[in-house]
Amino acid sequence: MKKILVIGAGRSSSNLIKYLLEHASSNQWIVRVGDMDLNFAEEKIGGSAHGEAFVLDGSNKEQRRLEIAAADLVVSMLPASMHVEVAKDCIAAKKHVITPSYVADEMWALDQEAKKNGVLILNEMGVDPGIDHMSAMQIIHEIKVSGGKLESFESLTGGLIAPESDNNPWNYKITWNPRNVILAGYGGTARFQKNHTLKFIPYHRLFEDIQTISVDGVGDFDGYANRDSLKYKAIYGLEDIPTLYRGTLRKQGFCEAWNALIQIGLTDDSFEIENPSALTWRDLTASFIDGGKENLESHVQSRWKLSDVVMSKLEWLGVFEEEKLAVSKGTPAVALQSLIERKWKLDAGDKDMIVMYHRFVYELEGQKHLRTSSMVCIGDDPTYTAMSKTVGLPIAIAARMILDGRMKETGVLLPIQPEIYEPVLEELATLGVKFIEKDILI
Amino acid sequence: MKKILVIGAGRSSSNLIKYLLEHASSNQWIVRVGDMDLNFAEEKIGGSAHGEAFVLDGSNKEQRRLEIAAADLVVSMLPASMHVEVAKDCIAAKKHVITPSYVADEMWALDQEAKKNGVLILNEMGVDPGIDHMSAMQIIHEIKVSGGKLESFESLTGGLIAPESDNNPWNYKITWNPRNVILAGYGGTARFQKNHTLKFIPYHRLFEDIQTISVDGVGDFDGYANRDSLKYKAIYGLEDIPTLYRGTLRKQGFCEAWNALIQIGLTDDSFEIENPSALTWRDLTASFIDGGKENLESHVQSRWKLSDVVMSKLEWLGVFEEEKLAVSKGTPAVALQSLIERKWKLDAGDKDMIVMYHRFVYELEGQKHLRTSSMVCIGDDPTYTAMSKTVGLPIAIAARMILDGRMKETGVLLPIQPEIYEPVLEELATLGVKFIEKDILI
Repeated sequence: MKKILVIGAGRSSSNLIKYLLEHASSNQWIVRVGDMDLNFAEEKIGGSAHGEAFVLDGSNKEQRRLEIAAADLVVSMLPASMHVEVAKDCIAAKKHVITPSYVADEMWALDQEAKKNGVLILNEMGVDPGIDHMSAMQIIHEIKVSGGKLESFESLTGGLIAPESDNNPWNYKITWNPRNVILAGYGGTARFQKNHTLKFIPYHRLFEDIQTISVDGVGDFDGYANRDSLKYKAIYGLEDIPTLYRGTLRKQGFCEAWNALIQIGLTDDSFEIENPSALTWRDLTASFIDGGKENLESHVQSRWKLSDVVMSKLEWLGVFEEEKLAVSKGTPAVALQSLIERKWKLDAGDKDMIVMYHRFVYELEGQKHLRTSSMVCIGDDPTYTAMSKTVGLPIAIAARMILDGRMKETGVLLPIQPEIYEPVLEELATLGVKFIEKDILI
Repeated sequence: MKKILVIGAGRSSSNLIKYLLEHASSNQWIVRVGDMDLNFAEEKIGGSAHGEAFVLDGSNKEQRRLEIAAADLVVSMLPASMHVEVAKDCIAAKKHVITPSYVADEMWALDQEAKKNGVLILNEMGVDPGIDHMSAMQIIHEIKVSGGKLESFESLTGGLIAPESDNNPWNYKITWNPRNVILAGYGGTARFQKNHTLKFIPYHRLFEDIQTISVDGVGDFDGYANRDSLKYKAIYGLEDIPTLYRGTLRKQGFCEAWNALIQIGLTDDSFEIENPSALTWRDLTASFIDGGKENLESHVQSRWKLSDVVMSKLEWLGVFEEEKLAVSKGTPAVALQSLIERKWKLDAGDKDMIVMYHRFVYELEGQKHLRTSSMVCIGDDPTYTAMSKTVGLPIAIAARMILDGRMKETGVLLPIQPEIYEPVLEELATLGVKFIEKDILI
């Protein structure tokens, strides 16, 4: 019997644990699921004979080490900041570990020690980062091997609401971390490259300098730039590529309206509002513009030349309402988060959707090609969401590969080599997470 | 003989040290001036028999303590972050200390201990903070004592170039810390109050939502809001005032052009430019907008609907030039700083200017009054600048008062009580730093 330790049983762990339990019997696995909240762990195991739910405080070093020592493989679904501590324990205990999160510098620093102890620390194994790397690298390698020369690579992903559940004017609901939705791009500047030229977009223009992306079957989206696309030159081995852009997808029209919130100042996270529970949304919005609360809507509309469509989105959200802020402390961003968590709440039966889109331009044998590759994944229900599938299934597949002895690498890794991404993408396709590719001459 | 220890002999210390030396003979003072750079200290003492220049590293605890122990009064002209350490030494050695800087929370925390040891820690004793507090409090107290009711208090200060030296299109030169010029307002949101309503201005609109301030004799200025005016409600005892605004003055037209730099993104301090020395200013500016370097000027002008006057300021500054960035590492803000340090450099013989302007609206005996109070101070030369006079003279006057036994308070203080501001303002007026007041019925 091999023991798989899953630390963290939040929403993203549903499909991961389901997959592991489904394969437990034939592989003789025990899936131990620890969470601060026993209910979460029990819910995910759902009474399976192959699973064990227990209370685990990820920050309790003693308990964490004992559990890791008793496991054959560790999956850390803890908040990203805690992976490094888990990885250190895994190195000491000589256990492989998988995480869905970006590799922090402190994680890279563990590479040599992990290798010395024969330990694999496989990161960025979720959807974004994760499936994005794998599906992109598969095409990048294929084009390179065929002798093609890449001129442009753009990649965009969105965590969205499925068309059948899309029933509000923003065409958006909260399907993942709401604080990340509010603070998307905040306090930074997006950097990418276009025709060999560096391009920078400051936050106050991030939702304005957008592009339109059409994805077969699901329509048109706004794409806005991610913080740092430039680091992918090294990661993807694209040092000489003229154009490299990574971005985020929202349903078309979202960005223009979100930009209005930014221009007003309602996404501001730099100061605490004095006594916010004494203010209404109309008060707060009026605080950001000259003039008072009378004719607030027309002041806002004329100041930023907002369309009637954008105004109706702002009105629907409630930023002009004489309704008290639902926070007793916090920044405008914190107040706005409480508002969108209410307005953009998933209804019972709502399904989420992950859309990923890659676009490559390359030259092969004197001809210019446009290759697109897109993936649309729709959730089954509020537990087995598209987010949970696309984050959890690559991890689960990798876990099986490791336990089967099909992954030989050690050290700190991303899934960018064929030995990892080929089998993972192949199995993902059988599980409904599949890419549709097109290649046309341009 | 009483020993005055001045730590730090930078540009702001010139008039401070000059005043102390002028009064040293009649008061039997020795003025010991310590600086990392002996030249600075010697230059300021200028061979006076009453001064002693020596090398002092403010961060060298041992040496600092010995010097403080040997002094009768300490003046800390170190960078603001170092005052707390100096103050702790002064408490231990039972010596009074004066600083020109804002009181940090860690400084307030020393209040009880300072009182216990009979030590005065007098802060915010420069120009802004300093003269602004004193001149405002004098009028606030006067209006209150007369039975008036304050409806509005606005206060703006600017460190500027004197009219006789004002010969560039921006009407601005670097007369103080250039990094603070570049990052004015950056990364935060200005907060003030207007007609009992909180008002917030995010950075991307700070230089757009401005007001015009006319000051007799020196013309029209733009006023933009300081970070946090609201805290002055408590400091000035104005808890119930409907309107409270603190701001910064620039010559009229400056803000519109500076706003263009912000909108483009050139004041960005959030990321390091990759290999900046390979880029020209035209490259960098083009990086911030869609499209290439051809027709860059017309793209920039049309995108932000800039006037020809603003465009000519940008052109004069050089942001469209094919001239290499003069930095090998740094953010866009760091690059821009290197540019303005060159373009806005003080020429030999240039004089700086400090302008301070207060505006009060109050009701007295059923009538509404508008009171204005303004101060214009022009520097003598590149050493005895307006900045040095207005920062150093209040400190020097307070030093004399303390050594004369005319200041009895202990603990952590600001100059907001009549016992301090009355004699300081009176003497400042005799030294050419004087306010002109007007009071009209409105």
